[in-house]
Amino acid sequence: MRMRRKKHLKERMDVCSDIILTDIKELDGDIKRIFPNDNPLRMEVGCGKGGFILETAKKHPEINFLAVEKNSNVLILAAEKIQNAGLSNVKFLHGDANLLRDIETETKCEVIYINFCDPWHKNSYRRRRLTHEQHLMLWEKLLCKNGEIHFKTDNKNLFEFSLNSFADYDMKLKNITFDLHNSDYSDNVMTEYEKLFSEQDQPIYRCEAVFRQNKEEEK
Amino acid sequence: MRMRRKKHLKERMDVCSDIILTDIKELDGDIKRIFPNDNPLRMEVGCGKGGFILETAKKHPEINFLAVEKNSNVLILAAEKIQNAGLSNVKFLHGDANLLRDIETETKCEVIYINFCDPWHKNSYRRRRLTHEQHLMLWEKLLCKNGEIHFKTDNKNLFEFSLNSFADYDMKLKNITFDLHNSDYSDNVMTEYEKLFSEQDQPIYRCEAVFRQNKEEEK
Repeated sequence: MRMRRKKHLKERMDVCSDIILTDIKELDGDIKRIFPNDNPLRMEVGCGKGGFILETAKKHPEINFLAVEKNSNVLILAAEKIQNAGLSNVKFLHGDANLLRDIETETKCEVIYINFCDPWHKNSYRRRRLTHEQHLMLWEKLLCKNGEIHFKTDNKNLFEFSLNSFADYDMKLKNITFDLHNSDYSDNVMTEYEKLFSEQDQPIYRCEAVFRQNKEEEK
Repeated sequence: MRMRRKKHLKERMDVCSDIILTDIKELDGDIKRIFPNDNPLRMEVGCGKGGFILETAKKHPEINFLAVEKNSNVLILAAEKIQNAGLSNVKFLHGDANLLRDIETETKCEVIYINFCDPWHKNSYRRRRLTHEQHLMLWEKLLCKNGEIHFKTDNKNLFEFSLNSFADYDMKLKNITFDLHNSDYSDNVMTEYEKLFSEQDQPIYRCEAVFRQNKEEEK
């Protein structure tokens, strides 16, 4: 989503510096260090303006959340939301999710949320899609055994691509819906983008995809 | 599809009696016995007027096909098509697919085709859907190791239900498409029903679902 440059961005980022991590290398192999406790960890890749992570973190104070966002003009809105709500279970990583490739973290997530990511329409850009095999390899590295991807999109073609990508990677699919807002799924937290689309009666696609236990481990 | 009673139905069925099996018990545990050779076997459940099985059998003379259909008014059209084409690799079973529950066949299929089956809209009838777990258990019994279901429908809700049903049964999904006629899949053979729908620009959903090797066998 294109976004105007925010006023006083630098000053506002400084105010939130306690919850915004700008250099992944600071983690030094242990994401959990940035949280005050050992609670389970979940991650949102591309948190946008933070509506989803705010509501989800409120619902689950027993879980820590790392929200990744490369666009500082929306990241600041998300961070201010969390700061204003006084939540201590959300931290932000400012940067591209691909930065996570460089860390060898021992901390594994139990869930990675991918909400309304860029569909990269052109086939020649398909490797950039966050559900492409190239990214699945990264999510698998970051997730614990039986870790789950929770994926939402309004883009039918991206959803079709993603189902195939998950299935080809031999992930187990769950709770597939072609119309989330008219489905049985009751635990949904809407993103800002999703609210906009749902007002226009556009269907939202959603599924969960679980990495299977490593076959070597099974034996 | 509702269908008027065909004229001279009994006489016409008699003419085709060599290729129409009316009593599953005649098979005596061995479906292959009704074919003149030991070629691999595929099955279509609900073949309707037989357009799909005719073209598919022509394309694959090296494969035997058993087409199951309970409605004799369409079955006769399908059987006459095969008879007229002089194909020896297609036989019909007149009756409900559930009859196959009663046989303990040693002959396993490599593929079961389910094309445009009744969606049974009402949730209370969902167990009748041919992709419901109750039927998957039957298809699993009839298919060989790594046997595949090839499934097509124009019904979005049935497709959503079926993807979940396949995934919950821990089948491996492949080649999922939300718009078969505008997809990369080049091996499609249209049914009569499909031609009708495609002329109205209705999208056709398709996927393949593979039964996983029994875990016990893997060890």
